[in-house]
Order: sequence, then structure tokens, then C-alpha cells
Amino acid sequence: MRVNELGEFGLIRRIASLLPSPPSDVVVGIGDDVAVLQMPTGELLLATCDAQVEGVHFVRSRITPYQLGKKIVAINVSDIASMGGTPMWALVSLVLPSDMEVDFIDDLYRGMHEQIESAGAFVVGGNLSKTKQEMVIDFSLLGRIAPEHLVLRRGAKEGDHILVTGALGDSKAGLELMNRPELIVSTAARRRAEERHFTPTPRLREGQVLGRSGLVHAMADVSDGLMGDIVHICRASRTGAEIWAFELPIGSACNEVAALVGQDPGSWALTGGEDYELLFTASPDAVPDIQKLLLDETGTPCTVVGRVTGEGSGILVCMKSGEKIICSPGHAGWDHFSQS
Amino acid sequence: MRVNELGEFGLIRRIASLLPSPPSDVVVGIGDDVAVLQMPTGELLLATCDAQVEGVHFVRSRITPYQLGKKIVAINVSDIASMGGTPMWALVSLVLPSDMEVDFIDDLYRGMHEQIESAGAFVVGGNLSKTKQEMVIDFSLLGRIAPEHLVLRRGAKEGDHILVTGALGDSKAGLELMNRPELIVSTAARRRAEERHFTPTPRLREGQVLGRSGLVHAMADVSDGLMGDIVHICRASRTGAEIWAFELPIGSACNEVAALVGQDPGSWALTGGEDYELLFTASPDAVPDIQKLLLDETGTPCTVVGRVTGEGSGILVCMKSGEKIICSPGHAGWDHFSQS
Repeated sequence: MRVNELGEFGLIRRIASLLPSPPSDVVVGIGDDVAVLQMPTGELLLATCDAQVEGVHFVRSRITPYQLGKKIVAINVSDIASMGGTPMWALVSLVLPSDMEVDFIDDLYRGMHEQIESAGAFVVGGNLSKTKQEMVIDFSLLGRIAPEHLVLRRGAKEGDHILVTGALGDSKAGLELMNRPELIVSTAARRRAEERHFTPTPRLREGQVLGRSGLVHAMADVSDGLMGDIVHICRASRTGAEIWAFELPIGSACNEVAALVGQDPGSWALTGGEDYELLFTASPDAVPDIQKLLLDETGTPCTVVGRVTGEGSGILVCMKSGEKIICSPGHAGWDHFSQS
Repeated sequence: MRVNELGEFGLIRRIASLLPSPPSDVVVGIGDDVAVLQMPTGELLLATCDAQVEGVHFVRSRITPYQLGKKIVAINVSDIASMGGTPMWALVSLVLPSDMEVDFIDDLYRGMHEQIESAGAFVVGGNLSKTKQEMVIDFSLLGRIAPEHLVLRRGAKEGDHILVTGALGDSKAGLELMNRPELIVSTAARRRAEERHFTPTPRLREGQVLGRSGLVHAMADVSDGLMGDIVHICRASRTGAEIWAFELPIGSACNEVAALVGQDPGSWALTGGEDYELLFTASPDAVPDIQKLLLDETGTPCTVVGRVTGEGSGILVCMKSGEKIICSPGHAGWDHFSQS
């Protein structure tokens, strides 16, 4: 069997099954985007990594090294944010063609530093290797969190409302504009779509406020697409979910670009991915307090987009017409191997 | 300018210069193989990473995935050992061709797990990405150490003796046998050379014993070759060094294979690299105690191979004849970009 037949998440499950049960200091291990590790002193350490592969995740002619540097940091900060944590230290592993221009590295680090500084963290080391082929940037980020503020994917409860910060689909609009530069859209839509795709802002402060509130049961960031990420929450929590498609906060650039190319903006908002918003669940009673707290502390709105259902109910997308579409996990969100 | 003109260590210095001074919680940052990070509770966290790139660091037809898994863990454990630390948790970032056999991954993880378990640590997460090209394995390892047991590269003092554990050059002999499979050597030499090259044993317990002894001033592991690694210690400590070539503990396989191919085994021991022995400095008075302690606690011998000299004295290799060869740092040890 080959890895593309197994798929990304199948391969992750297989890897987890190859290893023995983790020791007690591993609070969350393989299978989550972030490992949660118990320090002997009581505090929790968070550790995550994400690789950007040239020709797969980015094309050098279509993203500046400065943007690429910012983006790879943002992706990892978003993972730490999705648990309510505080980013601290990063390792950068670069696999570079020997003939790469040093200017590229300068701009890459300028972008990385700017983004990591705004998260209060620092690049503390890494590794350099050469390659005869295309470049790979693997970024590892460590963070900290007090145990009482930690939010995991696995805490969703049946009856919870499902909420998402900000708006969805603009990153997908940015990807579309990158792939079809001939499209003519408003300056505002182009700026927003490109910013959301190339230099996303992780919801760090939002994640911390949500974690400290004690009101959030489960949380993930929207990296694989809302449908993909709700699957992660439901799997970890042993629940189902209903997503109310007609309640989705759709970004303005998503609406404009999708209309222009004859696509459904709601579909982009559901499955586009790389929005780096936070997706979380909470008791319906707590929703007004959460919305007020988040808006007061960060200026970011959040919207109820569905509800958590019982285990075995599957993941349903509910349309305004009352129609319900059953989504099997395998058909929602980004899988790094199945799409090639 | 291109990265191969700058070289690996030139590029590392350039990257360090692009970033502001590290915050006070970064005890050791960019430029060392391991970052040393101050937790608020007083304990130190160690973080290192190392990438193995197909076609550069390994060739899939010449190393089994099981060996490769063991080796990538050993390399990182050796880095933690070189500070006296205790490995704890690892992240594995795999960049894989989509058509790779799942069996390869199974064997890779079997090797990784076996090696990491023997170090008392655990794989807690990572990332999977696909590539259209060759595979990359980036392995990040976190460890812990009490501040009073930490040994850095930068503590060498003029007049110190320089010591190395075990024996040198056998890994280079293994590389030679891999590249020239037609060579006929004794079974014992082949076994030892291949074991040292493909599945090196990191000197973990030795590093911990040396760290806890309080007698060691500076330490590094021999990954780039003794000459390359003594340069790291001297640069960090602002010293020079004399290496006594006639005192080097040369491995038995190195002696046999080098003789067979008409090469100088001493030269392999000096610059071969990937020995994963520990190179350290200590006051001459402390040497007998260190040798006894290490032998008693771990069964591993260590040998005096030189002495630390003043800043500006350079790095000299002293021959039995009394001849002294001046080595400039640029011509000793492994540089990932200058050799292509």
C-alpha cells in the first residue's frame, strides 16, 4: 500500500498505532496539531510544527519570501492559539538548494521575525541542509499554557453551539486570484483576499481570551477548512455536528470573487481552508457572554454556525431550505496526500 | 550572493545577525546545535532539530528505513547528550512522495521508536506533507536539564585538556564501505564500521555523567568531525586549540579500512565526522577523576587528545614528529553548503 491510498489522516492513525501508549507526561500526543506536555513543575508545554514545501504549499514566483516567512510563522502561531496558549520559542529547519540567493533568506527571516515578534516569541535555533531539489521550510514552535486555561479539540459536548471567529472564505478567494491573475476585482477585495491568503493574522489574543474565559469546551483553528476542522473536533470529542450553512460569516472578498467566477461563496467558506479563524464549542447559555467578552477584549466578532450532536449522528450541513447534506469525513477539508 | 558561497556557518551567522538580541529567557540561541531555554520555574528546556534529506544525507537503496529511523533519532539524542541533558519529547516532520510505500514508514517508525525509547523519550507529534520529489525527515527533540548540570560549548579555558570518548573514524570507514561495496574486509571491521555509520549509539549516559560531575568546562558531540567540532568549541569559548594527532583513539575498523584503501586513518579520525562521540575540555588536574568516573559509571573510556590554547592561537594539529599543521576553521569538518 502507498501513502496516498491511506491518506494523511489514515497515515497519522497508522503511525500512532505503531507506537506504544504515551507516558503520563504526554497530555496530548500524536494526532493533534499541537502536543501538550506536562513539565515536572506543573506548567504545560505546547509543541507544534508545520512544513512548507516548494511546489506543493507555495510557488516561489507567486509569493514573496517576506510573505512566506510571515505565513509559516502565522500557521504555527494559529495552532498554539487554538489551545489558548502563549508562543515562546521557534526552531527553523531550512532545506535549501545550494544556488539559492542569500537575499531570499534575508527576506524570509525578515517576514518570520516580524510575525513572531508580534506573537511575543523568538527564533532560537534550527538547522540548515542543502537539497538538489526544491526548498522545504519546517517551522517548530513551542509555547506555554497554564493547565486551567488549556482548551483541546476533545471537549465538545452534545448540545453545545459551534462558533467561529471573524469571517471565512477570503483565503480561498486569494488562492483563486493567485491562480487566475486575469480576474478583475475591486481593489478592496483583492487586498483583503491576498492579505488573508499570503499573510494571515493568527487569532492569538482571541484564543487566549477564550482559553482564560473557562467557557469554551473544545477549540481548533480553521486551517483545513471549517468542515475538515469540525471533523477533528467531533472525532476527538466523540460527537456529531450540524453546520448551519446559512449562518456562516462569509468574507467580503469571498463573496465578490466567488460570484465573479460563478462559484458558491458558501462552499468556499465551508471547505476553502487556510482562514486561520478559531472554531470552538460552548454551552448555548454562555454564547452571549463569550461574544461580548471577545468583542470587548479583541474587537473580533464570533458567530454561531451550528451545534454539536450525539456520537454517530455524523456531520451534517443544513441549508436554509431545510435540506441536510450528510458529509463523510473523507470528503471534507484538506488532506495532504489524497489531493495530488 | 548565493548560499553555497556563504557556506553553512556563514549563513548561520548571517541569520543570527538579522534577528535582534534574544530575550533573557534564551540562554543559548541561534548558532549552537541546541537551544537552551529558561522556563519560568527555573528548569532549562533544550531544543534541537536535524533534517535528513534523501539524495544528500542518505540514499534509499543504501540504508534500510529501520536504520534511517534509528540514525535520525541518535543524531538528535547526541546533541542533547552533548549538553548533559535528558531527552524528553520529539516531533517528526515527514515530507513524503505520495507513492511511497507505507511499509517504509512502518519500518522508519520502528527504528525511531526503538532508539528514542532507549533514550527514555517519546514521539509526541509532528507533521506530514507530500512532495513531488525526494523525502525529507526533520526531527525535533526536546530535553530537560537542571541549570547546575548544563555544559555548553563556550566554557573552555586556556590550559584545559581536550578529551574525547570512545574511538574515532569508524563511521567514516562505514561510509567508505557503503560507497565501495567491492572492498573485502574482516567481518568484525565491517560490522563495526556499518554499525557506527548506520546506527550510531549516542553517548547519552556519558554526557549526563560528565554534566553532573561539575568537572567539564565545555562539550560538543563529534558530528562534523573532531576538527570541525573543536572549532565550534574554540569559537564559542574564544580560545585556540592544539590537537595531538598521535594521541587520537582511532577505531579498529577505521585502521583496517583506511589501510586497505591507502588512506591515513588519523586523517579519517580527525575529519571523518558522524562519530557521535563526546568532545570536551577540563582542567588537567581533573582528568584522572573524569576518566575513572566515566569508566566506572558507563564503561566508556575517554582519551586526552590535545589542549586549549589562548585566543588568536588558532587550531593546530601536532604530529609525533613535532611538526604542527595550522588548520583554518574553513578547512576542517563538514559544511553543508560548501561541499556540493
